[in-house]
Amino acid sequence: MSDFRQRALDYHEYPTPGKIKVELSTPADSVDDLALAYSPGVAEPVREIAEDPDAAYRYTAKGNMVAVISNGTAILGLGNLGPLASKPVMEGKALLFKRFAGLDAIDIEVKHRTTEEFINTVANIADTFGGINLEDIKAPECFEIEQELIKRCKIPVFHDDQHGTAIVTAAGMLNALEIQGKNIEDAKIVCMGAGAAAVACMELLIKCGAQRERIYMLDRKGVIHTRRDDLTEHKMLFANNTDKRTLDDVMDGADIFVGVSGPDVLPPETLKLMAPNPVVFACSNPDPEIKPELAHEVRSDLIMATGRSDYPNQVNNVLCFPFIFRGALDVRASTINDEMKVAAVEALRSVSKEPVPEEVLKASKSASLTFGKDYIIPKPMDPRLLNRIASAVAQAAIDSGVAGVETLPAKYLGNNA
Amino acid sequence: MSDFRQRALDYHEYPTPGKIKVELSTPADSVDDLALAYSPGVAEPVREIAEDPDAAYRYTAKGNMVAVISNGTAILGLGNLGPLASKPVMEGKALLFKRFAGLDAIDIEVKHRTTEEFINTVANIADTFGGINLEDIKAPECFEIEQELIKRCKIPVFHDDQHGTAIVTAAGMLNALEIQGKNIEDAKIVCMGAGAAAVACMELLIKCGAQRERIYMLDRKGVIHTRRDDLTEHKMLFANNTDKRTLDDVMDGADIFVGVSGPDVLPPETLKLMAPNPVVFACSNPDPEIKPELAHEVRSDLIMATGRSDYPNQVNNVLCFPFIFRGALDVRASTINDEMKVAAVEALRSVSKEPVPEEVLKASKSASLTFGKDYIIPKPMDPRLLNRIASAVAQAAIDSGVAGVETLPAKYLGNNA
Repeated sequence: MSDFRQRALDYHEYPTPGKIKVELSTPADSVDDLALAYSPGVAEPVREIAEDPDAAYRYTAKGNMVAVISNGTAILGLGNLGPLASKPVMEGKALLFKRFAGLDAIDIEVKHRTTEEFINTVANIADTFGGINLEDIKAPECFEIEQELIKRCKIPVFHDDQHGTAIVTAAGMLNALEIQGKNIEDAKIVCMGAGAAAVACMELLIKCGAQRERIYMLDRKGVIHTRRDDLTEHKMLFANNTDKRTLDDVMDGADIFVGVSGPDVLPPETLKLMAPNPVVFACSNPDPEIKPELAHEVRSDLIMATGRSDYPNQVNNVLCFPFIFRGALDVRASTINDEMKVAAVEALRSVSKEPVPEEVLKASKSASLTFGKDYIIPKPMDPRLLNRIASAVAQAAIDSGVAGVETLPAKYLGNNA
Repeated sequence: MSDFRQRALDYHEYPTPGKIKVELSTPADSVDDLALAYSPGVAEPVREIAEDPDAAYRYTAKGNMVAVISNGTAILGLGNLGPLASKPVMEGKALLFKRFAGLDAIDIEVKHRTTEEFINTVANIADTFGGINLEDIKAPECFEIEQELIKRCKIPVFHDDQHGTAIVTAAGMLNALEIQGKNIEDAKIVCMGAGAAAVACMELLIKCGAQRERIYMLDRKGVIHTRRDDLTEHKMLFANNTDKRTLDDVMDGADIFVGVSGPDVLPPETLKLMAPNPVVFACSNPDPEIKPELAHEVRSDLIMATGRSDYPNQVNNVLCFPFIFRGALDVRASTINDEMKVAAVEALRSVSKEPVPEEVLKASKSASLTFGKDYIIPKPMDPRLLNRIASAVAQAAIDSGVAGVETLPAKYLGNNA
């Protein structure tokens, strides 16, 4: 067994199995404490909530509690291994929610026969939580699941594989275009892959100004075009009225390549076809669509991002999901809408343009980080992200009318310049 | 607002809303930690669990995690106020699991249309947890729900309102009978109330030796007898082939009265009808079926228990549920069977016959506690209960063939004399 493999297993097994635990947030030492915590004292908050459901935010852990929910059908890079096998990933996500945003998060793995049964199960338990993070659910079911749960739940429901990826990608992309002297409105975009993340990334780029007709999406059969008769509902939205059929056809003169597909599908010769000063996001993990060394060898005018931590410009969802939930829950948003997603994009962009704190350099083992080709996205563990993204998202929720409160919590005042 | 009411609300609101929180049980400080906790390290336990589902007990929090699940249809003394209003009670239960048995417990409130939908919802998320504690679900639905979930889940499912109450009642009852010089086998038993707790108490007393035909159960319409045509399935099991119709009819010569009904339904004149040296468990809370002062005035030969902490002999579920789950989870029991319940009864009985530690006297504000008429049940917060009950339950699970391991965990060796 490799050393890393053994270390990963040991990490999960010791000191106690798993990565999260439940603790008390109130004293429970004396008989008197217990009389308040349980019978007879507990009857008081019960009555308050029965009268006004919003009192649950005041007297229970609901408002700070996120459920990380999966059916294990698309476990990060491993595929469909079922709900129980996804548990370490979901606990890991819960750990990240706590570590980065102080949110209490608990994983729930759901087995089900039909998509409808999954939706019903989650909708039935949703009131327990302040928000729901869907995770590792395969396309195309994930689209229906998220849409239907957003409709049926009074709390934010967010499929991170779609929107977390999209938000970080959009932030990095807009910064890269700025450095390359290009506009998203004019960019010719190639998207390799047509799964959940691909669709969400393109939809968010469109919200940020991209032209749908200048996007060329490819699935395993090549370019998605209007004359294909094998398209799912979501691919249909990206069917391009074009006679181009291959990756080489559409890469000719492209400004942007976004890969959310598989390893080594972008040959160096194809990269050469792109317009001057291109941007390549090769997000397949752990092996990107093209190796960064190879890409830079072929195109010195390139800005490149990957999903890996050992290269510059890592597209990492942890830059977004803890903070977008923090902001949404802090103002009791009923949903996470496009305005909030765009606010997260802008906050991420602006943080990456500012001087980097010493501790971030140390944590990311970098000598220096200055906004430019090798630093278009903030680093994970940057302590500025929490307040900056959360406050921007919270303000956007208020401004767009989906917040349950009217003003930003005091902790954010002064941060949201 | 009364002082207690305000204190109870404040307790739930501060320092943070609610009573439980999620914390990390592994380090998550460095980039290296996160590489083990999440991508790429997390893939290793995922693969292990995909290959062998039992590995979830080794690499995730499942084995120490209990879900406290309710639909809020029978909230302690308050009735059917719906799932969200039950949340403070369920969080309180989670707090007790942690406080008394070190179990991680999380509340889940379920909304549903049909009983089948509730069952499906819980069955679909069950693999997330090591055990399920059902709570505050009204009869008769609770019977079907528990039975069906026991069938469908590979983990212990336990409706505490039924079996927790029954176990503590049975332990106290057998001790009381011993003191009164009576046998459960010969006892004439009157049970006032025919809900979930009543049925479970009587079934467990039968397992402990009581004769079904010597039990007289009463619902709102009086004695449950074989000529009634309005009985649910569970009441039918207690239909007595008798011509007695009223409480007075059956109390004549009764040895035992168990009340799980409502306040003041047992008149002093009726109490006088009982056989010499009777035992009365008046468990309606907060107001018992007869006030202890009044009962003792009428019958000096009485042993009495209530649900209240301010009288001797409190029947309190917290004496059982944390420890029975602790024992069941420690040996990965697939269920909580009758053998395990009876083992819990015997462990409770034996603890109450032993000298009481100083700290328990202090915590329960008692000068002395000696096995006898006023001390037939251990006190909550007795630190002996954890190891004694849990080890007895774990051993019973092993002996009855429902444990996932073959030997008692090392921590229990020497405790289970």
